[in-house]
Amino acid sequence: MPANMISKILEKAVHPLDVIAPHVKSEAARTSVLRNPNMEKLQKGYLFPEISRKHEAHLKKNPDAKVISLGIGDTTEPIPRVIASAMAEYALALSTPEGYQGYGPEQGQMNLRKVIADKVYPNMGIKESEVFISDGAQCDIARLQMLFGPNVTIAVQDPTFPGYVDNGVIVGQTGEADEAGRYAGISYMRCAPENHFFPDLSRVPRTDVIFFCSPNNPTGHAASAAQLRELVDFARRNGSIIVFDAAYAWYVSDDDDGDGSNTNSKKPRSIYEVPGAREVAIEICSFSKFAGFTGVRLGWAVVPGELRYADGSPVARDFDRIVCTCFNGASSVAQAGGLACLATEEGRDAVRRVVGVYKENARVLVDTFASLGKEVYGGADSPYVWVRFPGRRSWDVFAEILDKTHVITVPGSGFGPGGEGFVRVSAFNSRDRVLEAAARLRKYLA
Amino acid sequence: MPANMISKILEKAVHPLDVIAPHVKSEAARTSVLRNPNMEKLQKGYLFPEISRKHEAHLKKNPDAKVISLGIGDTTEPIPRVIASAMAEYALALSTPEGYQGYGPEQGQMNLRKVIADKVYPNMGIKESEVFISDGAQCDIARLQMLFGPNVTIAVQDPTFPGYVDNGVIVGQTGEADEAGRYAGISYMRCAPENHFFPDLSRVPRTDVIFFCSPNNPTGHAASAAQLRELVDFARRNGSIIVFDAAYAWYVSDDDDGDGSNTNSKKPRSIYEVPGAREVAIEICSFSKFAGFTGVRLGWAVVPGELRYADGSPVARDFDRIVCTCFNGASSVAQAGGLACLATEEGRDAVRRVVGVYKENARVLVDTFASLGKEVYGGADSPYVWVRFPGRRSWDVFAEILDKTHVITVPGSGFGPGGEGFVRVSAFNSRDRVLEAAARLRKYLA
Repeated sequence: MPANMISKILEKAVHPLDVIAPHVKSEAARTSVLRNPNMEKLQKGYLFPEISRKHEAHLKKNPDAKVISLGIGDTTEPIPRVIASAMAEYALALSTPEGYQGYGPEQGQMNLRKVIADKVYPNMGIKESEVFISDGAQCDIARLQMLFGPNVTIAVQDPTFPGYVDNGVIVGQTGEADEAGRYAGISYMRCAPENHFFPDLSRVPRTDVIFFCSPNNPTGHAASAAQLRELVDFARRNGSIIVFDAAYAWYVSDDDDGDGSNTNSKKPRSIYEVPGAREVAIEICSFSKFAGFTGVRLGWAVVPGELRYADGSPVARDFDRIVCTCFNGASSVAQAGGLACLATEEGRDAVRRVVGVYKENARVLVDTFASLGKEVYGGADSPYVWVRFPGRRSWDVFAEILDKTHVITVPGSGFGPGGEGFVRVSAFNSRDRVLEAAARLRKYLA
Repeated sequence: MPANMISKILEKAVHPLDVIAPHVKSEAARTSVLRNPNMEKLQKGYLFPEISRKHEAHLKKNPDAKVISLGIGDTTEPIPRVIASAMAEYALALSTPEGYQGYGPEQGQMNLRKVIADKVYPNMGIKESEVFISDGAQCDIARLQMLFGPNVTIAVQDPTFPGYVDNGVIVGQTGEADEAGRYAGISYMRCAPENHFFPDLSRVPRTDVIFFCSPNNPTGHAASAAQLRELVDFARRNGSIIVFDAAYAWYVSDDDDGDGSNTNSKKPRSIYEVPGAREVAIEICSFSKFAGFTGVRLGWAVVPGELRYADGSPVARDFDRIVCTCFNGASSVAQAGGLACLATEEGRDAVRRVVGVYKENARVLVDTFASLGKEVYGGADSPYVWVRFPGRRSWDVFAEILDKTHVITVPGSGFGPGGEGFVRVSAFNSRDRVLEAAARLRKYLA
């Protein structure tokens, strides 16, 4: 496993000083600039480098082990040729007087904005001017937190992708973290099998902003239409803003949503399928996990014109200013690739096939754990499988699986206290490796 | 002139609501979330959309006018074939199992970091681990301001690129702006012909951070070795951090620096040419203006391991955390292009030829204004030419030049109060258009 993969485990790791600046002596001179107190609040992340340390120790102990990573959510399938070719052609054209383009609009190429509005949000009233192209959902989370600033209160799911919280800490929205890793000032909404991975909103305090990821990372749960209606109603009653992270929306199956309330309704792929969402919700999305653009970097945010602050000013205007001031647009080459993903039936089919590979991987993993009698969630609408090991610490399970099967997973507690007792297993790997991992897991867990 | 070019004038424009959300009625519902007070402080930018309004009005009045833009600093020369081909090959390889790569390290590919350390900073002691690849200098400015946080004090040159100040306002470093556009809490260091474009540091108060751009945007002045020694000494005495913006470093000529102090010394292309800079300086740089990557998006920041906060903790460690939390790395395709710019003599020569085109354009513009008896600065070490019109308002000169010659410039006052009485003329255009603009200017100004 290369060093960059290790640093990517649990999405974000903190590197020790000896990696950053191995040559610097500790008695070096120093400036008199005070360290940003918000940076000091960020948890040191001892837990996260711990994975790479354990992995390295494992390789030392088992130098011939064929380790299979079902850890970090990193794509492995090649980008479909039609999409890669579009990027290559665009790049080559940059060497010609006719094809050269300098700065594009910070908000993205209008043809890409339009195809997203038309193809991703059909009949949802999203206009191209409301779509802001970005270099990925994680960067949009940072820009949205800069937009909101230090004075807002936020709520997050527990467990959840750590980016919402970490960027909130950086801009100064929180106090210190307690021993369990919860920051003062943040509302943590527990999402567990017991509540169908949806918080009891009658017990959730009002916050200015609610970060909600569906299909969820790490639990793999896609919220039902009824759940999202409840969420939107809650936000409307409270005058809150929802930031809906739809990075895994393309993994939602076409089946009925199965929440029992309406057997004809599908699980929503966008918050804007819910009536009334335009006035209260921002949506972020990404080409990373559906087109394999993790390294190419492309995503978008939708900020509807109807979304307004208490003073009546449109949120989109301030976000536009953030995009123009803190950002300069996504790479034009990546945007050419994004257009090829969505503009033609050929591109959309190619992308669906890639998603299908990972979904089938997820099914294999779900079946593996289910056949072993494990409590297993996710996978049906998500590349992530969430497995419960009752009464055990996530880290112990992680270590045991690694020790006995040479398979890397992610301890659920890395996603918040609510993840304790679970591990996340990622479907992002080749079919062969997933099948091999499944075979090893069956042998070990049987 | 397409809309995105107009919005790019003066680098950052604020869009009116009717562009962002033309369909939204003002009586729409609103949330109860308070607008970020730091966003409210940002100047409305009435001045900036004013350029596009004047341009549009000009086109209405003169529908057949062949307008030549010497306004925004946007590159026009094609990217050299050897570099575009490297990007195309990398993109195509992403469609193969052997060539596919997902997430790269957030800090950038190590081979690119190493070639930058070796080729851009030879004999300056910069290690690859100290080079952080980015999607451009503007984005690094935003990330650096997030790193520093709301409590630091900052100094900027006046006039200067507005990004340092605007991002400082967003993170909460300032009070309100006065009528001249100066924010409370920022130290503005006047840089004018009268002080050789270098502030009298004996009258500059200590600040935590000093943003210094050389060759400067907009004045085109490249600081001499003696000036930068003075700056580094000032920072070391005060325990300050310098953020040195070297986005135009490749435009510095090989001639003697001409400050009279040492006829054998060249003007530095990096702050790290100055002894003692490693302990006090961050450097940001970009592929935009030297390789035509304005749309491709690629840059880097150097944060030396020796640079430390008052508590002794390394700035690089917190910056690494920012890069991993708020960013996910530059596009891998862009990085392949960056490598092709620097790794071979062929790439470096190709890039130098492109820079040479713009430098020759700048020489034409300088000669034009000089032959007309104008006070003209910059151009020799920069793509920007800075022309004084004593006793006149920048906006009036801008309007008059546009009216009489159909040439777009940038009013100097857009870069700060210190730019009043000047216009910036950009060398970023084709040779033909620059010659045509020069001919029109000679005719009009003669």
